[in-house]
Amino acid sequence: MDNNIYEYVKELCVRAKSASCDLAVQTSAEKNKALAAIASKLRENVSLILAENEKDLSCAEANGVPKTMMDRLRLTEQRIIGMADAVMEVAALADPIGEGTVSTRPNGLKITCQRVPIGVVGIIYEARPNVTVDAAALCIKSGNAVVLRGGKEAINTNRILVKLMREVFEESFISSDAVALIDDVTREGTNALMSMRGLVDVLIPRGGKGLIKAVVENAKVPVIETGAGNCHVYIDERADMFKALRVAVNAKVSRPSVCNAAETLLVHRAVAEEFLPKFYDETRDVALEIRGCERTCSILPQALPATEEDYDTEYNDYIISVKVVDDVHDAVTHIRKYTTGHSEAIVTEDYTSARYFTTLIDAAAVYVNASTRFTDGGEFGFGAEIGISTQKLHARGPMGLSHLTTVKYIVEGNGQVR
Amino acid sequence: MDNNIYEYVKELCVRAKSASCDLAVQTSAEKNKALAAIASKLRENVSLILAENEKDLSCAEANGVPKTMMDRLRLTEQRIIGMADAVMEVAALADPIGEGTVSTRPNGLKITCQRVPIGVVGIIYEARPNVTVDAAALCIKSGNAVVLRGGKEAINTNRILVKLMREVFEESFISSDAVALIDDVTREGTNALMSMRGLVDVLIPRGGKGLIKAVVENAKVPVIETGAGNCHVYIDERADMFKALRVAVNAKVSRPSVCNAAETLLVHRAVAEEFLPKFYDETRDVALEIRGCERTCSILPQALPATEEDYDTEYNDYIISVKVVDDVHDAVTHIRKYTTGHSEAIVTEDYTSARYFTTLIDAAAVYVNASTRFTDGGEFGFGAEIGISTQKLHARGPMGLSHLTTVKYIVEGNGQVR
Repeated sequence: MDNNIYEYVKELCVRAKSASCDLAVQTSAEKNKALAAIASKLRENVSLILAENEKDLSCAEANGVPKTMMDRLRLTEQRIIGMADAVMEVAALADPIGEGTVSTRPNGLKITCQRVPIGVVGIIYEARPNVTVDAAALCIKSGNAVVLRGGKEAINTNRILVKLMREVFEESFISSDAVALIDDVTREGTNALMSMRGLVDVLIPRGGKGLIKAVVENAKVPVIETGAGNCHVYIDERADMFKALRVAVNAKVSRPSVCNAAETLLVHRAVAEEFLPKFYDETRDVALEIRGCERTCSILPQALPATEEDYDTEYNDYIISVKVVDDVHDAVTHIRKYTTGHSEAIVTEDYTSARYFTTLIDAAAVYVNASTRFTDGGEFGFGAEIGISTQKLHARGPMGLSHLTTVKYIVEGNGQVR
Repeated sequence: MDNNIYEYVKELCVRAKSASCDLAVQTSAEKNKALAAIASKLRENVSLILAENEKDLSCAEANGVPKTMMDRLRLTEQRIIGMADAVMEVAALADPIGEGTVSTRPNGLKITCQRVPIGVVGIIYEARPNVTVDAAALCIKSGNAVVLRGGKEAINTNRILVKLMREVFEESFISSDAVALIDDVTREGTNALMSMRGLVDVLIPRGGKGLIKAVVENAKVPVIETGAGNCHVYIDERADMFKALRVAVNAKVSRPSVCNAAETLLVHRAVAEEFLPKFYDETRDVALEIRGCERTCSILPQALPATEEDYDTEYNDYIISVKVVDDVHDAVTHIRKYTTGHSEAIVTEDYTSARYFTTLIDAAAVYVNASTRFTDGGEFGFGAEIGISTQKLHARGPMGLSHLTTVKYIVEGNGQVR
């Protein structure tokens, strides 16, 4: 590892750790004041931000960056105002810090279990400038310092956004080191951040499968795995056909690029002949590509044959794999084999099938008669989210402010010994 | 890595994963029945267990194993009965599985957040056969399968204990693969277990600093770090001298080998001349070695000079480092530098100092006027504990049954789409 970059990142993290101590003792009022000032700063500096964003866009265009990435990278006045509004929404959320429970032990010790910030949160993400502001706002509100490492394509935009946020802190009681950007576009910066044991308390990767896998496998600091969603919708023998069609179509095509979109449709053999042609008709206008098992292909001549690999693929595109199954047990067996533990749905009117499915499927969110697309912090009522955890430790499913906290036990006595 | 051992461990973990699905849906009544049967089995097979333990003891003696390890390795009839009693205590605890909260969203979606087992728990520990049974009981009660990797010195004892537990499952609805022992005494077994991503959901190392460090640094599966305790007791200017002496002596000498014992004593300069000679007198009978700063040595001629390294050392022995500090701020600065985030105590009658200390010290447990020795699952009212987490993710402080669970969101609708 390049020693200069390592030392540079270490210095940022040491400062962030120190700033996190200041931030941990700020009142909600102080933190909200800082967030409101950030929102104002963004609104006041729209043209400055757009100018920096333009540099990134020109550079990205020259480098032939794919169109989807260009879309995510591009800011507009409306998008910047949207970022500022999102910061105000975070400010309006209840502050989890300081909440807790109290118990008194038989020996008279009073034990308070209280929510406290985690400390320093590292975020590794791709070329999405909105994450820079969203993640910083959520961390500040929950009393954490944040070290950001965004995609290199957005470096100019990230620089100005972080500079504006830090200026706000310079006018407050909070050290500006509470929000830091790793201003280095090589992989060394990421590698250094992943090795900051004792300085960075948790690392949250946000982005595609490759990014998340790299962080999970290489980080020496604790990681919360997010995002991989090979989600299934199972249409049961006793499904209401209207709900089935509505849910399956929505889960797949309302926004195929996101992690809570469905990738595989499982259909009970008793209803496959009725359901599949209707599903095909409903998705014809978006030209959904269907890759099916033998039984699917015999019902839908338009379907291409699915391979084993298809069932294991998160397309994030207008493609779906379809399998006709014998019963709910068969559906559960298939899902258990291929699930990434994100969101899984059954459509059924049968009580026992629903109960069987929700009990035996091991995923963050298990749906009955509703679209997998609801797995989202906002939809779950948590307010903004920092990501969707697909691991089982610490947090599972959409992560809101409370998931950026840990606890501290405060034990008060009168000279008790053991 | 030895391929045979890797494949052997993988097979154990695949079977454990499958067993965990069975175990996850067992009722509390079924799980308690299995635990009661394990307790009976242990009581009925005391002589068999002692005979196997004797093999380990002879072997350990021949290999010149240290006396403290021999003590931990040795079982007696009383200790085996104690293990059985501990299993019954776990059976008597409330089952966290299935507990949860429900909310209804504006669109009518009903979201249930329910406690579910984590899945497969791996435990890596040293030559303490009681951990074999304790850890298995806690995992079973919380619906998790467990893969055990105990110290090689206890292999015969662990084999018989696991064999007896598995026999109980053969007579129940739970697969005996729910409790597995890695029957391999090389490091390869541990390395293989640490690499079982997707099969082992969490790894909990229990033991000395070296063991925990090795697991944290090398594991590819999520780890909960436990046990390192460089704990401090700070005697404030306004401490009650009676409480101060009582707490400091108890925190250090009641059981120096455990992680919640104090390693450093910080004393306000205004009370050092009064306190330190008394502390020396009170600990004279156990020949406590005192390593102090310059001011300490000038007050206590019996003290040896402390080095920087002393303040960073968890002695786990009849040794304490002592530093005279200027005030509570100085004490907090010292603790922040050297704390392992386990347990830290202040003795004071001053309200503001107490509040300052509990707010600014970042540790799992922060004490006012009580001994650090209370950081323990039993003392906190959690029942038995699987370890004491010194990390901030997932669990912090003593971990009871609820910390061996995660959540699942069950979302029920009537055809809702987004």
